[in-house]
Amino acid sequence: METAAAKGTLVVLAADLATTEELVRLIHQVGPHIAALKTHVDMVEDFTMESWHEVVAAAHTHDLMLFEDRKFADIGKISKTQMGGIYDIRSWADIVTAHRVSGPDIVDGIAAGWDEVQRIGGVFLLAQMSSRGNLLSEGYTDATIATGAASPHVLGYIGNGSAPDEVSSLRKKVGEGKMIWTPGVNLSAAEGVLGQRYGHPAEAIGAGADGIIVGSGIHGAADPEAAAAAYAEASWNALLSR
Amino acid sequence: METAAAKGTLVVLAADLATTEELVRLIHQVGPHIAALKTHVDMVEDFTMESWHEVVAAAHTHDLMLFEDRKFADIGKISKTQMGGIYDIRSWADIVTAHRVSGPDIVDGIAAGWDEVQRIGGVFLLAQMSSRGNLLSEGYTDATIATGAASPHVLGYIGNGSAPDEVSSLRKKVGEGKMIWTPGVNLSAAEGVLGQRYGHPAEAIGAGADGIIVGSGIHGAADPEAAAAAYAEASWNALLSR
Repeated sequence: METAAAKGTLVVLAADLATTEELVRLIHQVGPHIAALKTHVDMVEDFTMESWHEVVAAAHTHDLMLFEDRKFADIGKISKTQMGGIYDIRSWADIVTAHRVSGPDIVDGIAAGWDEVQRIGGVFLLAQMSSRGNLLSEGYTDATIATGAASPHVLGYIGNGSAPDEVSSLRKKVGEGKMIWTPGVNLSAAEGVLGQRYGHPAEAIGAGADGIIVGSGIHGAADPEAAAAAYAEASWNALLSR
Repeated sequence: METAAAKGTLVVLAADLATTEELVRLIHQVGPHIAALKTHVDMVEDFTMESWHEVVAAAHTHDLMLFEDRKFADIGKISKTQMGGIYDIRSWADIVTAHRVSGPDIVDGIAAGWDEVQRIGGVFLLAQMSSRGNLLSEGYTDATIATGAASPHVLGYIGNGSAPDEVSSLRKKVGEGKMIWTPGVNLSAAEGVLGQRYGHPAEAIGAGADGIIVGSGIHGAADPEAAAAAYAEASWNALLSR
């Protein structure tokens, strides 16, 4: 994240909004305080490639990486095809997420998708989750990290920052060559709905994360810009005091 | 699968084609020999809701269930939203697949998606996969079946038919209340590309499957209708001699 240092932020904005207009407005509000934009393109109700290009252009204005949280979870051959289709993720995403569950070939399948449009992108594998009852056991995490370590296409891992001890051991397992981004981060740590849990930015960064994924803490705030600045500061201070 | 008995087939067609025109043609060719249509709507290059309705209408002509192999793999809250969007899966799919990996809430999230449009659908959880290096360990499978057993929204499981002993034990674990559909089935069992493996229809049904998912064995055949009829016969004979 080259822009992270320039901006003094480790914030990845989870932009779970339903329209491209809302997305563009939010990007311009908080763009100076974040490093990357995490999207779920398949929850955008008014998607057309034209309207989506406005989102992409807004993100580029603020030097944001585009990070589609697709959670690819099929075999490589299918995932490659799913990088295309009408969303054509391969043509605009710089980073995507994938589950390791179906097999290691998923990374090659995704990379092959980018190859088809002569672009290069990076995969973040889900190594840990904070959701209740998830099945990412320690053995699952280890297999995921082994796959990532063996592939130049894997930039890093999504790992749980809610439990510092766990995540320190994730950093030990991962080493220094790959990134760890921690989801479910909120300045007021609390229990979410439908299986979501939150952790604090300082906890996540203190435990070794290189990025914190923040959603409603920013886009649900009365003043999203001020909130984004607060998360940026919290993440950067935590980095400096690590 | 009410139509399965009427037609004498346990075949679920994996219709991995890139255009709606090809899909509609294939459905009319093989419809009488199959029980359900498995789609990846996000690999259809010319998707519009209008063109997709032609696929849905063609499937309904042949009494096929529409089975979107989305492999939902996020938390419940996100999966609910992903049932909508421009593909609006909730409005046409009768069945979807989901990974249990993120947590049991995914089933409720998907069901809530159908609720929003006053429809009822069923979830198939991935309990086993045949792809190389997958992480669906026995403990993972057991947790998946426990989730399914506790939910009326789970109709059944996707389970591996390549290894009869394993799948018999899957049937024992599942009991009789839920279905098992086995993917990667081909009359000429052989190794596929990018992590895919194939098993034989008689093996899968003999091991307790209620449905066999067949892809290139039908849509890649010189005569898809004859191929579909052959798979239907093989599956039905295997059921009768079980």
